[in-house]
Amino acid sequence: MTAWGARLAGVRGVLLDISGVLYDSGEGGGKPIAGSVEAVARLKRSGLKVRLCTNESQKSRGRLVGELRHLGFDVSESEVTAPPPAACQILKERGLRPYLLVHDEVRSEFDEIDTSNPNCVVIADAGENFSYQNMNKAFQVLMELENPVLISLGMGRYYKVTSGLMLDVGGYVKALEYACGIEAEVVGKPSPEFFTSALQEMGVEAHQAVMIGDDIVGDVGGAQRCGMRALQVRTGKFRPSDEHHPEVKADGYVDNLAEAVDLLLQHADK
Amino acid sequence: MTAWGARLAGVRGVLLDISGVLYDSGEGGGKPIAGSVEAVARLKRSGLKVRLCTNESQKSRGRLVGELRHLGFDVSESEVTAPPPAACQILKERGLRPYLLVHDEVRSEFDEIDTSNPNCVVIADAGENFSYQNMNKAFQVLMELENPVLISLGMGRYYKVTSGLMLDVGGYVKALEYACGIEAEVVGKPSPEFFTSALQEMGVEAHQAVMIGDDIVGDVGGAQRCGMRALQVRTGKFRPSDEHHPEVKADGYVDNLAEAVDLLLQHADK
Repeated sequence: MTAWGARLAGVRGVLLDISGVLYDSGEGGGKPIAGSVEAVARLKRSGLKVRLCTNESQKSRGRLVGELRHLGFDVSESEVTAPPPAACQILKERGLRPYLLVHDEVRSEFDEIDTSNPNCVVIADAGENFSYQNMNKAFQVLMELENPVLISLGMGRYYKVTSGLMLDVGGYVKALEYACGIEAEVVGKPSPEFFTSALQEMGVEAHQAVMIGDDIVGDVGGAQRCGMRALQVRTGKFRPSDEHHPEVKADGYVDNLAEAVDLLLQHADK
Repeated sequence: MTAWGARLAGVRGVLLDISGVLYDSGEGGGKPIAGSVEAVARLKRSGLKVRLCTNESQKSRGRLVGELRHLGFDVSESEVTAPPPAACQILKERGLRPYLLVHDEVRSEFDEIDTSNPNCVVIADAGENFSYQNMNKAFQVLMELENPVLISLGMGRYYKVTSGLMLDVGGYVKALEYACGIEAEVVGKPSPEFFTSALQEMGVEAHQAVMIGDDIVGDVGGAQRCGMRALQVRTGKFRPSDEHHPEVKADGYVDNLAEAVDLLLQHADK
């Protein structure tokens, strides 16, 4: 493989996935991944631009940032690109009134949205709210629409919490797509619009940016399709088979965020 | 379209779907579809061979037949081809110990199967048992296996009860397939093995048989792929758009089972 110097040449901005890179979520707010608190601090001091780019859709950004700060991370809400605000903008622009199949914690992000007499479904990582009753309600709303619109906050297959792997929203989107014979519109990674808005908010072009994530498809593959480089960390939901993925090859595999930052500080433009 | 006489020539055996053809299931045992009780009786008196071929996986065959008899249908358990016994045979042959993601009512069909230390998942229409917790358990079982085996009892998209449309097992299979990156083995319609075993139990060749169902894909398309003819009834989950399905065209569309039986008694071999 090419030397790291060549692979990281010209990098001016870094997009960081949160869950599985900064911390593993779980009971009591989860645990930071070893070395990640210091790695974020070093990165922010380095002169490289940094933005957090997450598909977190179980928590409001305020709650998420509060938990990260509690774990020692120096981050603020304005540094986070997350799906719910992007979804709200789409709903407003198109006059859509969603049935919200979301986690209770994230419902407040949709406070300004009219949810009466739904003409679409918004689905996010709803956790325990993925009951049969709620899924069936979403299904029935979609089946009654002439032009069913299903907006999904991310397409994650699963994520890791301290107690193990957990089903993410993607499977539930596939369930509704199959049952209704429709295709969802995805807001969040790996949607190109979502990566692009994170790049714009950071003020860096795609070819100058690197994504660091634990999801070989959603983070690495998605960022690469936008013209970015991407590293996969061997933390979070990483599995050894990811390094031999049939379709996606990262620009590099690193043990954790700390190693990625070491390499960036040696080789990237600052 | 060709005259009914030509379309039904040489038919000697009839496979009947149950839900949406004989009755609409629902609270209190559901309701018979108008004319279907008499239609089944006439069919059985006609000399044509008759077999019930269902993907019902929420109830044991005993319970299902009990409900049908209560509604006035003259049917017995030995006339029913259903997925659970077919699944049990596969589990025994291959030494598989399933985690059962099924409805409480159908669990008794698996009484003879060892479910300790699961090395596969069996999924059926579990209704309210499709909780996040149970889906996540099935996901975790599959993710821990070197060669994950997911056996699905049917791939139905939805079914109709008296109160409306309900999500069926198919979507939940798609969810696990996506999350785990695997493909399920389907027992039940539209699996060719399942139709073939129903034909064998009836003692009729595929080209001599007609399937009557309300599901354009699972019943009509599945039966046709096995070399049978198939009629779709405009009851149950039928939707007008089914008559213009992009991939499947029934050999005929009839208003209900009563009309199908009228046509069969006029035109089929007896």
